[in-house]
Amino acid sequence: MFAPVYLDWNATTPLDPVVRDAMLPWLDGRFGNASSRHEYGRQARAALDEARAKVAAAVGAHATEVVFTSGGSEANNLFVKGAAALMKPAMIAISAIEHPCVREPAKQLRRADWTVREIAVDRAGLIKRTDWQAVLAAKPALVSVMLANNETGVLQDVATLAHEAKAIGAWFHTDAVQALGKIDVDFRALGVNAMTLSAHKIGGPLGAGALVLDKRVELAPLVAGGGQERGLRSGTENVAAIVGFGVACERAVARIGDEAARLAALRDHLEAGLAQHGMRIFSAGAPRLPNTVFFAADGLDGETLVAKLDRAGFACASGSACSSANPEPSHTLLAMGVDREVARGAVRVSLGRDTRQADVDGFLASFRQLANELSNLTAMAAQP
Amino acid sequence: MFAPVYLDWNATTPLDPVVRDAMLPWLDGRFGNASSRHEYGRQARAALDEARAKVAAAVGAHATEVVFTSGGSEANNLFVKGAAALMKPAMIAISAIEHPCVREPAKQLRRADWTVREIAVDRAGLIKRTDWQAVLAAKPALVSVMLANNETGVLQDVATLAHEAKAIGAWFHTDAVQALGKIDVDFRALGVNAMTLSAHKIGGPLGAGALVLDKRVELAPLVAGGGQERGLRSGTENVAAIVGFGVACERAVARIGDEAARLAALRDHLEAGLAQHGMRIFSAGAPRLPNTVFFAADGLDGETLVAKLDRAGFACASGSACSSANPEPSHTLLAMGVDREVARGAVRVSLGRDTRQADVDGFLASFRQLANELSNLTAMAAQP
Repeated sequence: MFAPVYLDWNATTPLDPVVRDAMLPWLDGRFGNASSRHEYGRQARAALDEARAKVAAAVGAHATEVVFTSGGSEANNLFVKGAAALMKPAMIAISAIEHPCVREPAKQLRRADWTVREIAVDRAGLIKRTDWQAVLAAKPALVSVMLANNETGVLQDVATLAHEAKAIGAWFHTDAVQALGKIDVDFRALGVNAMTLSAHKIGGPLGAGALVLDKRVELAPLVAGGGQERGLRSGTENVAAIVGFGVACERAVARIGDEAARLAALRDHLEAGLAQHGMRIFSAGAPRLPNTVFFAADGLDGETLVAKLDRAGFACASGSACSSANPEPSHTLLAMGVDREVARGAVRVSLGRDTRQADVDGFLASFRQLANELSNLTAMAAQP
Repeated sequence: MFAPVYLDWNATTPLDPVVRDAMLPWLDGRFGNASSRHEYGRQARAALDEARAKVAAAVGAHATEVVFTSGGSEANNLFVKGAAALMKPAMIAISAIEHPCVREPAKQLRRADWTVREIAVDRAGLIKRTDWQAVLAAKPALVSVMLANNETGVLQDVATLAHEAKAIGAWFHTDAVQALGKIDVDFRALGVNAMTLSAHKIGGPLGAGALVLDKRVELAPLVAGGGQERGLRSGTENVAAIVGFGVACERAVARIGDEAARLAALRDHLEAGLAQHGMRIFSAGAPRLPNTVFFAADGLDGETLVAKLDRAGFACASGSACSSANPEPSHTLLAMGVDREVARGAVRVSLGRDTRQADVDGFLASFRQLANELSNLTAMAAQP
């Protein structure tokens, strides 16, 4: 198999080999429906309990606050639609740069007479204080603001926002999928009522995520049925994936201390190289994840560049994978006031535990060559 | 690890080793977000396409009709709530013996002013024609009747029911989770509008299921977001699990010819032994799955018997695993008019591809001994 250098760790991550080793027995002799009252079922239940404790510990929550789901998208939908289902129609406020799996369920609430209010961000991608005050004055019942943005990596001051939102009686949710394993995430310190996590962004498997939930928040289940996960998420638990999620949390959080500094140094090196080539780094002045670089240059087409980089052996993204089917420029950049034409040139490079200096150097060399070729073509096309 | 004889194949199944082999590369060097536009993403997308074709072929559907979900519970919820969300409030009719993951979402529709009508079954567990005619006269907009019941194994005449329901303009859904891989299942021959499938009941992994969907039916997504699965199920696709689901479908369906007869013979042998001991076999006279035996005797407690059988080395169930947390007797049996006391004594034995004659003989020997002990205890307790 042709294996390009993987520079798209915000889209998904290869499975950590230690995580895989923990999962494999559950794809072999160990199996069982965790609701079954026999030896197979009890062993599956015990494995789920252990994983639940690990996920909770990774974010400073209680094990009883962890509701396992099939992933981050489901957890975001569970909070938005599950909380709204048990309330009178009101307002939900979400940041203008939320992931589609928060924006789309919020839009669905309109059918149930809810109002959706987007919270504006500034040019750096941070929540605008003036608009936030206006939102609070409008008394939303639900608020969702992501901890780290998947495209720019920008970090919101969720602790302050949550404190202020709760003061007006709103339930505050944060999508922490991109933050987990890259920066410290603490459920209590953030003071949120609900938080979304995902396994496959941190070296864990696809198929497992969680909503960490303050028990005061009542939710209607999205998947109703047998009553698993305290009645909040029915369906036979995916034991192998959840076991992997637990180990991935443990490993990813333990690694942050060393990895955050290492990745930030690589990131800075990459950004210095891109800046030499006249690239604009989005959210450069704001608090950001240590692994994410989102950049563009006027006149370059991000899609084309990403396709050329792929053929040159470097896998990166022209935006989030979740909207790759969508030819529109990044809604995150548009919300930040970036021109559509500039936004069309955006390229996201996200680093991870396997990324080495040589990978970044190789990327920069290829990038310089390809960007020059593209610029020359553009210049030639512009000649009379 | 202590490994009891596994006789609970309707709860979940061990992973077919061939399925595991197909999945393992996707838990190793092969990984990728199927929405990513680079080599990793394209390979993941190709694997999903191949799996989709296999699942579709297993039930005689088109690949474009397969919507992957995290499992059967989610697929059932997607149909019930997703279809209702885009319709004016009306009536949903479900059989009185549906799995909780159909019953509970149907009940949730009441908040949106829907009416839930249960369709009565007779003493054998088959839909009562008289009540069905009454249901049709009441013009439900949605109907859901399972193809094979998870507890009794009883098979409904879904083709006839679907034909009649569609004639009055209803969308007809069937939960075929327990039928797949045990009997032939054909989407077109059944003539249903939607059908739920699950991987882990047929030797596939946990974490994958599907709603096979007639495209005329419009659904609102349960998990909304990035727009995967034609917008009907967002979230990064679980490539390993879906690849496993595809191979499991192929294998399970290819095996039916030999396995159905082999399991039916074992089942008949088991039932003959149980009958000698005075056990009542539920739905004995009705068309049933070849692998499922649901039985009880007056005066025996199913929970106690299952716990003793477990210690003796035989893993079976006192009802469906999905309601094992629920101390109530089986709602399926109650709907069939079985006395609560008899229903409390129910034990389900479900056979699978690893079950051998020696397993059934061993079970019968243990069962006789344990049932005698329990009867003696009961008799002693009843003495003055």
